[in-house]
Amino acid sequence: MILYSYWRSTTSLRVRAALNLKGIAYETRPVNLLDGAQKAPDYAALNPVEGVPTLILDDGTVLTQSMAILDWLEETYPEPALLPADPVHRAMVRAAAQVIALEIHPVNNLKVGAALKARGFDQQAVVDWMCHWMDKGFAAYQRLILSEGRFSFGDTPTQADLCLVGQMVNARRWGLDLAPFARLVEIDEAARALPQIAAALPENQPDAQ
Amino acid sequence: MILYSYWRSTTSLRVRAALNLKGIAYETRPVNLLDGAQKAPDYAALNPVEGVPTLILDDGTVLTQSMAILDWLEETYPEPALLPADPVHRAMVRAAAQVIALEIHPVNNLKVGAALKARGFDQQAVVDWMCHWMDKGFAAYQRLILSEGRFSFGDTPTQADLCLVGQMVNARRWGLDLAPFARLVEIDEAARALPQIAAALPENQPDAQ
Repeated sequence: MILYSYWRSTTSLRVRAALNLKGIAYETRPVNLLDGAQKAPDYAALNPVEGVPTLILDDGTVLTQSMAILDWLEETYPEPALLPADPVHRAMVRAAAQVIALEIHPVNNLKVGAALKARGFDQQAVVDWMCHWMDKGFAAYQRLILSEGRFSFGDTPTQADLCLVGQMVNARRWGLDLAPFARLVEIDEAARALPQIAAALPENQPDAQ
Repeated sequence: MILYSYWRSTTSLRVRAALNLKGIAYETRPVNLLDGAQKAPDYAALNPVEGVPTLILDDGTVLTQSMAILDWLEETYPEPALLPADPVHRAMVRAAAQVIALEIHPVNNLKVGAALKARGFDQQAVVDWMCHWMDKGFAAYQRLILSEGRFSFGDTPTQADLCLVGQMVNARRWGLDLAPFARLVEIDEAARALPQIAAALPENQPDAQ
């Protein structure tokens, strides 16, 4: 498989971590979002949203959208499971994952930041904007997960933890006060201690700068 | 089941339509987002994101996040299917659905509009902002779906169509130019012609104003 990825993209991180945890070999092809490589016609033909990640299967099938890719991986390579077996438990893991994937990340990504700057926000106003949504979203996430266990939903990582690890990278990068989120800091630490997740972190990507 | 819903909420519409299509009886409990009912302590205890929808199962289990609820419905009430059986086809439907659920809606919802106004946007600037993301997102959606068939992925509706119908309500409300999106207008029309989807439209809710 080929994964089009950007080192700092947290949506790419989710997929890198899932591939690693499931032991699937892949080749990383960096897409430099800062240079606008996602808008190059050849790439935009693969990924009409002009974003990362894009996963190319061995038969040439093109998959986009990180959460759709995570579900495809889960259905195709079920072990180790990143979702519980019981439908209600799955829904709870998905809801927590989606607090990050739908309530925080889309409002905070690179293109939204650029659109805000084009409308008069300065850098500090964009950082305040990002921290506002992270603060609200993390508070909700913390109430949706279990209060004990190494990870958000027990002693093995789930899709929710993969979303969390990526968002924590951004939280630290933009200086979010993590004091109210001790449980999330703990989970993040446990997750980053797994070599498969460590290998998915931004600083360990071939295009890291 | 009890569905906490707001008539104009397109995330609520997705779940109403799925419940109707699957023939599941439910009682609607309106949450007036304009009055801030989503922030009332009793409601926020159910839904820490302080949003709609929230689905309460007959045993009291609380499910949040529209896309997680759609997947739970699919796993628990598989007929009629709103996702194809083949994992790659499922991933493609999910990717299209997520272009709306992750790339358009989260950047355009009521709380983001309010946050932009609190930061100096006037009403017209907020409308321009919403139309910007709808225009980009719809263009991508149109490239991710099939070019023929009554619905986005064939002759039966999927999760992607449910997301589309809701977003088209907002597109019309905010005056998006739909000329480039003839295929989406056609699909939307086919979807609204189904009585189960018609019953999920904003104007047919008990709290419609």
